[in-house]
Amino acid sequence: MSGLSRDVEADRRARAALTRVFEPGDERGGRWIREVGPSELVRRLMGEGGPAQPLKGMTAQRLAACRLRVAAADPARDLAEVAAAGGRFVCPGDTEWPSQLDDLGDARPIGLWVRGGPDLRLWALRSVALVGARACTPYGAHMAATLGAGLAERGWVVVSGAAFGVDGAAHRGALAVGGATMAVLACGVDVAYPKGHTELIGRIVEQGLVMGELPPSEHPTRSRFILRNRVIAALTRGTVVVEAQYRSGSLVTARNAQRLGRFTMGVPGPATSGLSAGVHELLRGEGVLVTDAAEIAELVGEIGDLAPVRRGPVLPRDLLDDLAARILDALPWSGLVSGRDVARAAGTSTDQALGRLYELHSLGFVESVGDGWRLTPVPPSDADTRRGGA
Amino acid sequence: MSGLSRDVEADRRARAALTRVFEPGDERGGRWIREVGPSELVRRLMGEGGPAQPLKGMTAQRLAACRLRVAAADPARDLAEVAAAGGRFVCPGDTEWPSQLDDLGDARPIGLWVRGGPDLRLWALRSVALVGARACTPYGAHMAATLGAGLAERGWVVVSGAAFGVDGAAHRGALAVGGATMAVLACGVDVAYPKGHTELIGRIVEQGLVMGELPPSEHPTRSRFILRNRVIAALTRGTVVVEAQYRSGSLVTARNAQRLGRFTMGVPGPATSGLSAGVHELLRGEGVLVTDAAEIAELVGEIGDLAPVRRGPVLPRDLLDDLAARILDALPWSGLVSGRDVARAAGTSTDQALGRLYELHSLGFVESVGDGWRLTPVPPSDADTRRGGA
Repeated sequence: MSGLSRDVEADRRARAALTRVFEPGDERGGRWIREVGPSELVRRLMGEGGPAQPLKGMTAQRLAACRLRVAAADPARDLAEVAAAGGRFVCPGDTEWPSQLDDLGDARPIGLWVRGGPDLRLWALRSVALVGARACTPYGAHMAATLGAGLAERGWVVVSGAAFGVDGAAHRGALAVGGATMAVLACGVDVAYPKGHTELIGRIVEQGLVMGELPPSEHPTRSRFILRNRVIAALTRGTVVVEAQYRSGSLVTARNAQRLGRFTMGVPGPATSGLSAGVHELLRGEGVLVTDAAEIAELVGEIGDLAPVRRGPVLPRDLLDDLAARILDALPWSGLVSGRDVARAAGTSTDQALGRLYELHSLGFVESVGDGWRLTPVPPSDADTRRGGA
Repeated sequence: MSGLSRDVEADRRARAALTRVFEPGDERGGRWIREVGPSELVRRLMGEGGPAQPLKGMTAQRLAACRLRVAAADPARDLAEVAAAGGRFVCPGDTEWPSQLDDLGDARPIGLWVRGGPDLRLWALRSVALVGARACTPYGAHMAATLGAGLAERGWVVVSGAAFGVDGAAHRGALAVGGATMAVLACGVDVAYPKGHTELIGRIVEQGLVMGELPPSEHPTRSRFILRNRVIAALTRGTVVVEAQYRSGSLVTARNAQRLGRFTMGVPGPATSGLSAGVHELLRGEGVLVTDAAEIAELVGEIGDLAPVRRGPVLPRDLLDDLAARILDALPWSGLVSGRDVARAAGTSTDQALGRLYELHSLGFVESVGDGWRLTPVPPSDADTRRGGA
C-alpha cells in the first residue's frame, strides 16, 4: 500500500469516526473537516500530540462532548461490519462520490454508508426524487407507484426515503418494472426503519442502493428525518412531491431542491384534499405541475447533455468499471438479447448482469425493449461525425 | 326629445338592427360601425340615399347578404319585445355599458341584450367568471358550487354561461347564498338554452342579470358558443376554469382572458382525471392554481383600488341611481338591519331592496353579516382624512 492510499484509508477511517461525532448537516463540523482535514480533526479531538489545539468556534463544552463521542467511536469495526454486510463507506474524493452533494457546502455528508451493487455516482446522475406523505390517500399511493414505474421504465433512478405511504409506493413502482431505485435512510443502513418495510428495504439493497449518513445501528430521530431530506434534494435532478399536507417534511425536501437549483415539481390532487394542500401551495409558488412520468422526464431531461437515447451515453466508455464494460461488450451490435444471454456471454450471474444492464441503461448505453436489451442506437449526427472523422 | 337623444335612440335602433346582420365577434362589421357609425351603416346597407356607397373590404356578395338581413330586421319590434319582458338593449356610450368590453376592439359586442334589475356596468366591475365542462364530475360540480357561493359571499358577482355542469353549479352556488350572478348566453335572452335550465335562467333574471349579443329568438350555434366566451373573458376581472378536457371551450375563455390581461386561474384535480387534464395544461402555463374562493378573491382583488371593505366603496355615492341611493340612505349609521326593514324604510318591496343591497354590497357600500346588513365601516385612514379635512 502506497503512502497516498494509506492517507486515503486513514481519512476514510477518520470520516467514519466523525459520522459518530457530528449529526447530519452539522455545518460547523463540516467546516472544521474542510479546514483541518478529517484525520487531523480526529487527532485534535482525541487530544493526541499534546495539549488540545483550538478549533475556531469550538467551546470547551462542545469539545468535551466531541471528545467523548470520538473516543467511543470504533470506525474500523463499523467499516468492517458494513463491509461484511456487502456495504461500503463512500467519501468525498472517491470515484463513487456523487459530487452534486458538494452543493450542500459545509452541510454535505461527511460520507455515505452504502449498500447495494450499482455505482452511486452513476445512478445519482440520472435520478429523480419522489416524496410525499406517510399517511397518503389511495390516490397518492397510486400516483407514486405509477410515476415510479414510469420513470424507471424511462431509465431514471427513483429516489425516496423508504417510509410508509408515498415513499414505499414509489420504490415499489420502480421495482415492479425491474427498474432502478435508491433509498436514502435517516438511520444506519443496517437498521430497517420502518420495521414494516424490512422486506422492501432488503429488496432495494438487492436490486438497487440503500444509503445514509448515519453509522451502523443508529436510529432515526425527527431532526435526522428532516436533515435526510437535504441529501435527497441534493442527490437528484429534481424532486416531485406527490401528496403533502401544509408544513410537511416533503415540502422541506422540495424547498431544499429549489434552493439548490434542482427542479421542484408537484402532483395536483383534488382541491378538497388536505393531503394535496401542501402540494398546491408549492404549485402556487415555484413548483411545476406534473401529472405523468413523461412530463417529469421531459423537465429534468433538459439539463445539459444528459437526455437519454437522443444524445447517447452520458459517460465515456473508458470510465465504466470492468464488469460494466464486460457486460456492454457482451451485447451484439444489433438486435435484442435477454439478460440471461448477456450473463452467459460475459461470464457472470444473471443477477449481476441485470444490475449492470440497468446501470448501463440509466447511463444511456443500452435500451430495454420488453424483456430484451440492446445497444442504444447511435444518433444520426454522431454517426455522421464518426463516418466523417477517422 | 332633444336632437341629441333622438340621435342616441336612432343609433340604438341601428345597433339593434345590426345584431341581426353581423354574427358576434365579426371584426369587419365592428370596423364599419366604428368608421361610419351605426345609423349611417344601416342607411348604406338599406341602399337609402341613392346608389350604394362602398364600404372598405365589402364584396358585392357580402353586401347582398347584409342587405337581405338588414331588410328583414325589425329593431323597433325587437326593442319593444325585450322591453315588454322587462329587458333592455345596452349600447356602447350608455352609462350601463361595461367599458372593459372595449378591450375587444372591433370584436366588441355591437350591443348587449340584457334582462334583470342590477346595473350591468357596476356588477361587471366586481365580477369573476367560473367556467368548465358540461359533463363535469361530481367533484367539478362541488367545486363550482362551493367557489360560486364563496365568491358571492365575499361580494363578487359570479359570471358563467348557464350551461349544464360547471356553469349551472356556479350560478346555483351564488344563488344559494342569496348572492349575485350573471349569465352570458350564446342565444337571444328570450331563449332558454339549455331547455333543462329554463328555471335556473329564470331565477337568474329575477335575482341577477342574463345577457347576450344575439337578438330575440336567435338560437346558439357552435361558433356562437365559442364567441360568447370572449365576452365572458372581457367582462370579468378573471376567469377560473374548474374542470376542462384538452381543447375545451372553457380553455378558449381562459386563453381569451389571458390575452386581455385578465387573471386566468384553474382548479386542480386528480392527475388521473381526463376532466382535469385541460386545467392542468393551463396551470403548467400561465394559469394560477386556486383551491378556494379566498385565494381567487385575493388574486383578482389586487387590481387597482377595488379591494372591498378595506378601501371602501368603489364608486362615488353620487353615481348611484335613485333607488340604490334611497336604499343606502335607509341603512342606519351603525348596527345591523334586515332586508325587510331596509325595504320598509325605503318604501320599496323586499325583493327590490335585496337586489339593490347586493349591488351596494358588490360596490363596497354595505356588508352582509348573517341575515343582516350594515354600512361598510369607514377605513381608519379615510376616517382620519375626513376628520383632518372639513
